[in-house]
Amino acid sequence: MAAHPARGPDVAPVAWSAVGPTAVLLLSCPDQPGVVATVADFVWRNGGNIVHAEQHTDTTDGVFFQRIEFELEGFAFDRSELADVFDPVARRFGMDVTIRFSDDRPRMAVLASTAPHCLVDLLGRSHAGELAAELALVASNHAEHEQLCGFFGVPFHHLPVVDDPAGQDRAMRQLLADEQIELVVLARYMRILSPEFVAAWPNRIINIHHSFLPAFVGAQPYRQAHERGVKIIGATAHFVTAELDQGPIIAQDVAHITHRDGVEELTRKGRDLEVVVLARALRAHLDHRVLPWGNRTVVFD
Amino acid sequence: MAAHPARGPDVAPVAWSAVGPTAVLLLSCPDQPGVVATVADFVWRNGGNIVHAEQHTDTTDGVFFQRIEFELEGFAFDRSELADVFDPVARRFGMDVTIRFSDDRPRMAVLASTAPHCLVDLLGRSHAGELAAELALVASNHAEHEQLCGFFGVPFHHLPVVDDPAGQDRAMRQLLADEQIELVVLARYMRILSPEFVAAWPNRIINIHHSFLPAFVGAQPYRQAHERGVKIIGATAHFVTAELDQGPIIAQDVAHITHRDGVEELTRKGRDLEVVVLARALRAHLDHRVLPWGNRTVVFD
Amino acid sequence: MAAHPARGPDVAPVAWSAVGPTAVLLLSCPDQPGVVATVADFVWRNGGNIVHAEQHTDTTDGVFFQRIEFELEGFAFDRSELADVFDPVARRFGMDVTIRFSDDRPRMAVLASTAPHCLVDLLGRSHAGELAAELALVASNHAEHEQLCGFFGVPFHHLPVVDDPAGQDRAMRQLLADEQIELVVLARYMRILSPEFVAAWPNRIINIHHSFLPAFVGAQPYRQAHERGVKIIGATAHFVTAELDQGPIIAQDVAHITHRDGVEELTRKGRDLEVVVLARALRAHLDHRVLPWGNRTVVFD
Amino acid sequence: MAAHPARGPDVAPVAWSAVGPTAVLLLSCPDQPGVVATVADFVWRNGGNIVHAEQHTDTTDGVFFQRIEFELEGFAFDRSELADVFDPVARRFGMDVTIRFSDDRPRMAVLASTAPHCLVDLLGRSHAGELAAELALVASNHAEHEQLCGFFGVPFHHLPVVDDPAGQDRAMRQLLADEQIELVVLARYMRILSPEFVAAWPNRIINIHHSFLPAFVGAQPYRQAHERGVKIIGATAHFVTAELDQGPIIAQDVAHITHRDGVEELTRKGRDLEVVVLARALRAHLDHRVLPWGNRTVVFD
Repeated sequence: MAAHPARGPDVAPVAWSAVGPTAVLLLSCPDQPGVVATVADFVWRNGGNIVHAEQHTDTTDGVFFQRIEFELEGFAFDRSELADVFDPVARRFGMDVTIRFSDDRPRMAVLASTAPHCLVDLLGRSHAGELAAELALVASNHAEHEQLCGFFGVPFHHLPVVDDPAGQDRAMRQLLADEQIELVVLARYMRILSPEFVAAWPNRIINIHHSFLPAFVGAQPYRQAHERGVKIIGATAHFVTAELDQGPIIAQDVAHITHRDGVEELTRKGRDLEVVVLARALRAHLDHRVLPWGNRTVVFD
Repeated sequence: MAAHPARGPDVAPVAWSAVGPTAVLLLSCPDQPGVVATVADFVWRNGGNIVHAEQHTDTTDGVFFQRIEFELEGFAFDRSELADVFDPVARRFGMDVTIRFSDDRPRMAVLASTAPHCLVDLLGRSHAGELAAELALVASNHAEHEQLCGFFGVPFHHLPVVDDPAGQDRAMRQLLADEQIELVVLARYMRILSPEFVAAWPNRIINIHHSFLPAFVGAQPYRQAHERGVKIIGATAHFVTAELDQGPIIAQDVAHITHRDGVEELTRKGRDLEVVVLARALRAHLDHRVLPWGNRTVVFD
Repeated sequence: MAAHPARGPDVAPVAWSAVGPTAVLLLSCPDQPGVVATVADFVWRNGGNIVHAEQHTDTTDGVFFQRIEFELEGFAFDRSELADVFDPVARRFGMDVTIRFSDDRPRMAVLASTAPHCLVDLLGRSHAGELAAELALVASNHAEHEQLCGFFGVPFHHLPVVDDPAGQDRAMRQLLADEQIELVVLARYMRILSPEFVAAWPNRIINIHHSFLPAFVGAQPYRQAHERGVKIIGATAHFVTAELDQGPIIAQDVAHITHRDGVEELTRKGRDLEVVVLARALRAHLDHRVLPWGNRTVVFD
Repeated sequence: MAAHPARGPDVAPVAWSAVGPTAVLLLSCPDQPGVVATVADFVWRNGGNIVHAEQHTDTTDGVFFQRIEFELEGFAFDRSELADVFDPVARRFGMDVTIRFSDDRPRMAVLASTAPHCLVDLLGRSHAGELAAELALVASNHAEHEQLCGFFGVPFHHLPVVDDPAGQDRAMRQLLADEQIELVVLARYMRILSPEFVAAWPNRIINIHHSFLPAFVGAQPYRQAHERGVKIIGATAHFVTAELDQGPIIAQDVAHITHRDGVEELTRKGRDLEVVVLARALRAHLDHRVLPWGNRTVVFD
């Protein structure tokens, strides 16, 4: 028997999750003295215990960014009052403030086309409880992922383009609005969203593009990569803006390739990159660690 | 309409697959003059068109390795005769020869425990036709993946350990033998195989270990990694031998981590590594590109 | 002329350096409420403008770590008084406190043996003004780097081992003490330091080891790597403690290798890794971003 | 004494270099049956022992590439006769043939501007005997590297631009021609070469560009990278052609960055990339492993 011991699980005690829900303030304002101390004092004076605080100053633009996270237990106010009680501090420093909570589970829609890899991965991670979001629905311009979504218990909507792309775009927007979707993930969704669509979810649409942007914008980046003869391929997760593939970048990664890799092989190798980069960006966003700033992002650790 | 064009698919013409099935010779022998020319001549003289040839000489051990692949169409002999007609060449140079065909689809079993990530990934890749193997069955010492395998149409076998680990090991071997399994993949299977088990599939059992071997052998490598305070974590795919985590390494990769990553976070980040490294090793093996040599491997591109 | 324009330099305005010297507090203490707010308040109340603040809580050990950096200009006290005026805060929370200044230039000694690559790199970086340290001397158990150090204007000391290793170790310690060395960098110095030597510069001796520790401790890691048949090699920069290659790790990185790489090629590829990993660790240390904790380190960004 | 043992050197026996000089054939021709066997037979029939053979077929373009290396000792012809005796084979298959020898040491010129890092690295590698080339001279449009080159015993030529860029370009060409330079390395040389210059060394000028091409062509790529908000930076080594930054890529690599990295920090991190990528490309070229093909390269292992 001794010859067949179990290897034993890698089970970790989840100490930090025992602290109960936390509030996260994501702040940006003109760089000026006193911000750090004032914000820390605000939390402390009101009974909040700070569990994470990180800041960044963009010296080129003179902008200060901060993420500060504190336990709600013991805090003097209810979470519903937080925006109001913090308002004087925000006004004093001219802050943009976003308030999130660690137990937020935004309603998320995943849009996909025919390629299944990113969709399968997100369904799996959602199923495993890895994502702090409610995967409310999957929608596609194609029909083939219906069964897959059914297996994972996620409602699937088929909105074909047929010969009315503008109508499909409108129908998709309507669906997401009706379903009160707060976050849209484009998991290799091969349609370009209309400006109205993009405007309805500002910095709330995350796309995975299959190149290291800004190289190889648009269609068929693996074909472009092969033709240019590059020695690396990449993937980029970014917020969607009105300009194609130009939005603020959240995460990027690359893989080395060789002359042996044809377009088909690049496509295959790229899939593994796309899956991981999209998941990494999504997780950072859901952990309230991403602060878009113009065309760039601050992504705290 | 112009505002909503499709991005267009990345569809690659699969030119190389038009050549029809190929034969692959994996050779090793003492390093000596004339091997390359003799093997090339053998193929050419018999009407085979060589589509890939790569060689390596281990100068320390004085051993020559070669992978040579040629089209079967036009070749003077049937594939069933190849071993016999090549035998004189093999004898002359004292070669170890393995003969494979590009349309081989070995019967593969995946063994898993409770962690689903590698299993889900392999089911998905198999389903997408990415793996040149027949996923004949999944077997586990736990019951929970039954439904998942059912969805993908793969037979699932539950062989619990209860209080007879040796019996379970024996039953597993029997199952694989009955099912004529040629390749065994341990997709985070948390049991140590008996020496008899290992001996029955020499260099035909591939394991994914969740560390950069030889560091952190055995159980709980992420916990070991955290305690040692390393700044990278890794994953290693290797052939299983009688000694735990000591077999020939096929593929390895790492990810950077920081002091912020606790054991739980390492475990999560490591999952993405494990999935990719196992898939990479499995694909190299199924493409007949891996030649084990003692405790090392030659992995041709 | 238009056909031959200059490409133009990549000259960056160094906005952040205009703020004048800063103080850096590196703190650790038992995790408890109020630390962040109290420290921020201390700085702010005394007229300091915080330009960087980062914290980490090790939930396993219940320890809080913080790096807080503020401008000295406008601060109510002279830098020489800072330790004293911060003392009440430190006592209240049971803090270990290290105080550094951005214009610190610790006296640094580089110890090398015959391999020149890390030494050449450090001489070059020091010459280019990239390192916030005074490269006071180079010492070696061999003579060959004398001319090189002379070219860069750095005093060179040759302390051969001959047949008295303990005496050489003692002489080296004496030299470093006489020269008031505050930081010792082992740039592929192939001698093991005595316990007395290590004790004299606690967490002030940085070594580059040519493997991904904890794998391949001791001599000839590239030979060990080749024999084990790994597919990656690595380098590790760590603080030196009494146990060989067991000290707190500051930085690690790896490179992919193949079966084609013999020991000589691993050694060559490894050199590029060693140079970069050592420089990265040294820079983190000189930027006052490294906090050793037991056998691990917190390395702030 | 036992407490102070040496760690011991990583000295590798250089078994493979004992075989004496080798010839390398770099071939390309329309893909067709019989090439591999015919070339192998040619070498073998004439008494050459093949020590390395690798091939690649570009199925899109229908082109076959091969690198075949064999020992000159025992070969039936003198190296000076090789081109002539191979000519019938080359004609039969319509081959482009390049013939090199392992003991070739092409006369190499390094061109630099003010940034020293790539130049210092190449001087160091050349000095250490790592590069199979004769570093015949360094030339620059600036004067400051004269002393450095003097230390390494390499002639330095200062060709300032003043107000006659075309004249400087012409003078540089003349210098390289007079010095019978066979290979030109642009080690962060911040001048654009004239078409006549480029045409004089076809696929014999290697440049290091400080971005992952095709992104950030032209001047100030780190500034462009910062403005675009990318999360990786890169370096690309390529052959220089008439179009700026468009030539065949030999090697590329990237490093991860964060929002904390300003242009100055990107420039600093990028330097380490540039050094390594340029050295890697140069080494591949000097090992006769690079075959340019249109705008791409085949780089054998």
